[in-house]
Amino acid sequence: MSDHISQITPAFAGGTMDRADQVRVNPDRLRDAMMRPNARLLRLDGLNPVFDDHGNLAWGAAYEASPDNDLLLLGMDGDTPCFAELNGAGNAGPAADPRLWQALGGLPPEQAAVYATARSLVDWHARHRFCAQCGKPTESRKGGWARLCDPEKDGCGAEHFPRTDPVAIMLSECEGKVLLGRQPRFPVKRFSALAGFIEPGESIEGGVRRELWEEAGIKVRDVRYVASQPWPFPSSLMIACTSITDDPTLTLDEEEIEEAGWFSLAEVQSAMAGDPDAPFIAPPPFAIAHDLLRHWIDLQTG
Amino acid sequence: MSDHISQITPAFAGGTMDRADQVRVNPDRLRDAMMRPNARLLRLDGLNPVFDDHGNLAWGAAYEASPDNDLLLLGMDGDTPCFAELNGAGNAGPAADPRLWQALGGLPPEQAAVYATARSLVDWHARHRFCAQCGKPTESRKGGWARLCDPEKDGCGAEHFPRTDPVAIMLSECEGKVLLGRQPRFPVKRFSALAGFIEPGESIEGGVRRELWEEAGIKVRDVRYVASQPWPFPSSLMIACTSITDDPTLTLDEEEIEEAGWFSLAEVQSAMAGDPDAPFIAPPPFAIAHDLLRHWIDLQTG
Repeated sequence: MSDHISQITPAFAGGTMDRADQVRVNPDRLRDAMMRPNARLLRLDGLNPVFDDHGNLAWGAAYEASPDNDLLLLGMDGDTPCFAELNGAGNAGPAADPRLWQALGGLPPEQAAVYATARSLVDWHARHRFCAQCGKPTESRKGGWARLCDPEKDGCGAEHFPRTDPVAIMLSECEGKVLLGRQPRFPVKRFSALAGFIEPGESIEGGVRRELWEEAGIKVRDVRYVASQPWPFPSSLMIACTSITDDPTLTLDEEEIEEAGWFSLAEVQSAMAGDPDAPFIAPPPFAIAHDLLRHWIDLQTG
Repeated sequence: MSDHISQITPAFAGGTMDRADQVRVNPDRLRDAMMRPNARLLRLDGLNPVFDDHGNLAWGAAYEASPDNDLLLLGMDGDTPCFAELNGAGNAGPAADPRLWQALGGLPPEQAAVYATARSLVDWHARHRFCAQCGKPTESRKGGWARLCDPEKDGCGAEHFPRTDPVAIMLSECEGKVLLGRQPRFPVKRFSALAGFIEPGESIEGGVRRELWEEAGIKVRDVRYVASQPWPFPSSLMIACTSITDDPTLTLDEEEIEEAGWFSLAEVQSAMAGDPDAPFIAPPPFAIAHDLLRHWIDLQTG
């Protein structure tokens, strides 16, 4: 089982680019990277990706960036510095455009990871232009990996780093069936794993237990980690787990969960196969809930 | 192995209090909880805990809170509402006071978790009094679990939630030895697992691989999750993993790692036993690196 688990690479998790942190933190090396003739710029339409004719991420040259925008160092692809423009686009909500999902679904894993990184960072800068500590304007530093409330410009000196918000997403199993639910905003018939932000003062396992108690009214045990996935809408780290429930009685938090139930192996298999007669529509392949259900099927079947 | 893993409960990870999110989000229920005669207030000295004569966390009555301070709903202990005061204390750095560590080490797990939650949240409010999006002052909402940039007071309407920053902390094994290192700020002879923040666009496993490449110059495979721990200095979620290295040649990032090396099972055992002749001093029991080394010893010794 362990060997199987370590081979799960959810969408957005397949990053291979060298993030080159030693370049970020060195202003001379960073400037040199920006000035190199081969330096590339990821094309973005606001927060959305731009694709070339082959369905790959489209790139331009770093010198094409607007002089008004700071650059984000995504990393080094071999000896090619790769940047994105901090273009001011921000959106705290989920990405709703079905065409975006379709296009992302066709990207090679390493390109999806580059896009995820760029999207989270561009968005973070747009929505964090002021110092949370003192309210003054902040400026991008370290190739876009920090913002400084500059003490030489009357700032308080606080350094701010991009957020990554850990989210527990989990199955629970009871009597051979698995718990799935639907949020009010889901497409028709879509059911997925329940999920929620891990809070300060809580472990991953504690977050799983609390969320399933709050949202479904069940007490769970034997929480196990399965896989993780960066989710750039806007900046989550999805942490997928399984758990066991002894009493299947559900008490739903109807603000969060509109409907939930226990599904059998055959029902999950038919939904994952896309059977139109399945009792629900499975989460899409780029969501870690999909990997989690695939993992659960594998555990049951062998 | 899996059954063993799920039984690791690091310090601060043993929370049992009901966080009562349905009370937080309901202003009437929240006010009712604050007014109850049995409502308790966690005593804090700035960000530090206050202990009673038995070495437990000290509590007062909620009505003793300063009217100038907002209250944080820690949760319900049975039918007792438990609060902490948002007293304005903040500290972005690590906690350095050895007496604090000693006292925390003696706390029952559920009390350590209550303190961890209170400390992270009190600190977060103190250092996030302004809206990162527009720079205006924000106000505590939802029993201290959010801050609002109030549109009725000329704010932009942004809602801000407490940060939880995921950190990968990891061992790597090569030829039966394990990699440990020391940061320049560590006490003399202390060695521990390497660690670093997981970045946007990265999975947990990707963060482990990147950190070990950046800090130690090694390429690792077979990353496995072991356990997690909230770490309230100020707001990390420590995610402990193991990995395998084929080539043990180290290239250190000397800004981050002053010294590192591969240690044998016998050397790790002697350090964990507190042997004065051990080649290094092991991380203390409240650090998840301690649990990680204990886990590694258990794996080696069967």
